[in-house]
Amino acid sequence: MKGLLKRLSICFSKDKDLYFAIKNIFGFRPGNIFLYKLALRHKSAALKLMNGEKLSNERLEFLGDAILDAVVAHYLFRLFPLRDEGFLTEMRSKIVSRNQLNLVSRKIGLYDLVTTQRDHHPGKSISGDALEAFIGAMFIDKGYDFTEQLLINKILKVHFDIYELEHKDFNFKSKLIEWGQKEKTPVEFRVLAERGSGHSRQYEVEVLIDHHRVSTAIDNSIKGAEQLAAEKAITALKGLGIEINNHQGS
Amino acid sequence: MKGLLKRLSICFSKDKDLYFAIKNIFGFRPGNIFLYKLALRHKSAALKLMNGEKLSNERLEFLGDAILDAVVAHYLFRLFPLRDEGFLTEMRSKIVSRNQLNLVSRKIGLYDLVTTQRDHHPGKSISGDALEAFIGAMFIDKGYDFTEQLLINKILKVHFDIYELEHKDFNFKSKLIEWGQKEKTPVEFRVLAERGSGHSRQYEVEVLIDHHRVSTAIDNSIKGAEQLAAEKAITALKGLGIEINNHQGS
Repeated sequence: MKGLLKRLSICFSKDKDLYFAIKNIFGFRPGNIFLYKLALRHKSAALKLMNGEKLSNERLEFLGDAILDAVVAHYLFRLFPLRDEGFLTEMRSKIVSRNQLNLVSRKIGLYDLVTTQRDHHPGKSISGDALEAFIGAMFIDKGYDFTEQLLINKILKVHFDIYELEHKDFNFKSKLIEWGQKEKTPVEFRVLAERGSGHSRQYEVEVLIDHHRVSTAIDNSIKGAEQLAAEKAITALKGLGIEINNHQGS
Repeated sequence: MKGLLKRLSICFSKDKDLYFAIKNIFGFRPGNIFLYKLALRHKSAALKLMNGEKLSNERLEFLGDAILDAVVAHYLFRLFPLRDEGFLTEMRSKIVSRNQLNLVSRKIGLYDLVTTQRDHHPGKSISGDALEAFIGAMFIDKGYDFTEQLLINKILKVHFDIYELEHKDFNFKSKLIEWGQKEKTPVEFRVLAERGSGHSRQYEVEVLIDHHRVSTAIDNSIKGAEQLAAEKAITALKGLGIEINNHQGS
């Protein structure tokens, strides 16, 4: 009876669209709808409180990121009982990559629910960040076991082809270096600059092919910047008719 | 009655020492003792199976590492409701640092239970790795909620002074650079070598003070190697009577 009353009250609340969107996308009824509203509030549309504090989905994203990592670790642990931890680590980083999370978030329609500032230029990772924040909200609202089951059944099993990912080679840097060795063309990676400190540290890396700069990229780790720059370089070479990327390396 | 029989049977089993050690350290009764035995088996003492597969605690360590990250993220999320995700990220990395995990693992006596090869030179992180693997075993045996409660009540609240950690500055690199600027002495960090690939990639970094090499260090990230090398350099300078480290930077 109480449940019925609650559901009826939702039909007349201003949050009913979000409530039913979540019900449609994930198939569950949110308990505390405010958590999910916060999860879908991008920092460009942060609410400013009286005490100067800003409310956006960034804290929930921190939490959801950790929960997702744990769920994926457990999932892979059971799915590949005979593979070592190096393989599991690599598989997990393929699944939780920014790119994959962005894709899934758009595919399931979560991205369309995100609140951003009207004139905010849409950043690359808003959709993936919102997915992580949503996972954080779900974890607080429904607990770990519920979140794990839902992520496995509605996200991992549906939107990831694990065995395809297993054979997909995301290591653009090593691909580029191998190509250079085969073609006897020098390929170099150089750190151009290091900016900021601590959590906001960023590295800029360039790729030189035959001593000419082909691409640059920025990331918060040197490894990450190298991968991005290598990916760009491979795309640039493709534009020149040089095909490196067979997507089936590993 | 069944529980009593099970407990009685443990008194006569060859695993009773481990069973009671876990009961003493953590205050709970293990369900599947074999998981915990595996968690305490270092790779140097891996069991070789008929099919060539090796059994050690490395896969459980991968899982436990992720569970610990999630538990600490949730703990900090609730403990610091007004701090941003940058602060939470930094606090977590202080808590789950290899050094802290090694210390705790030795303090609670878990390290003494680890099986290694008799002539194995004890690596730096065996004890912290075993703690993570133990967490992985506990998670499989008892579930997330149990593991979270236990880690918070028996480890985080007891063995970590969170507010002291908050003010402790682990950034040895920035400390060394600041000192160099104050003393007008050039301080440089250089990547000397990059070895291996993928998961086993390692970087060697050197610290030059006034153009002389003061220390080198190896780690699987450049950031990590820089921090280790900077810490060594600070210790070396201390040996020369130059005090940099006040431990209260932030």
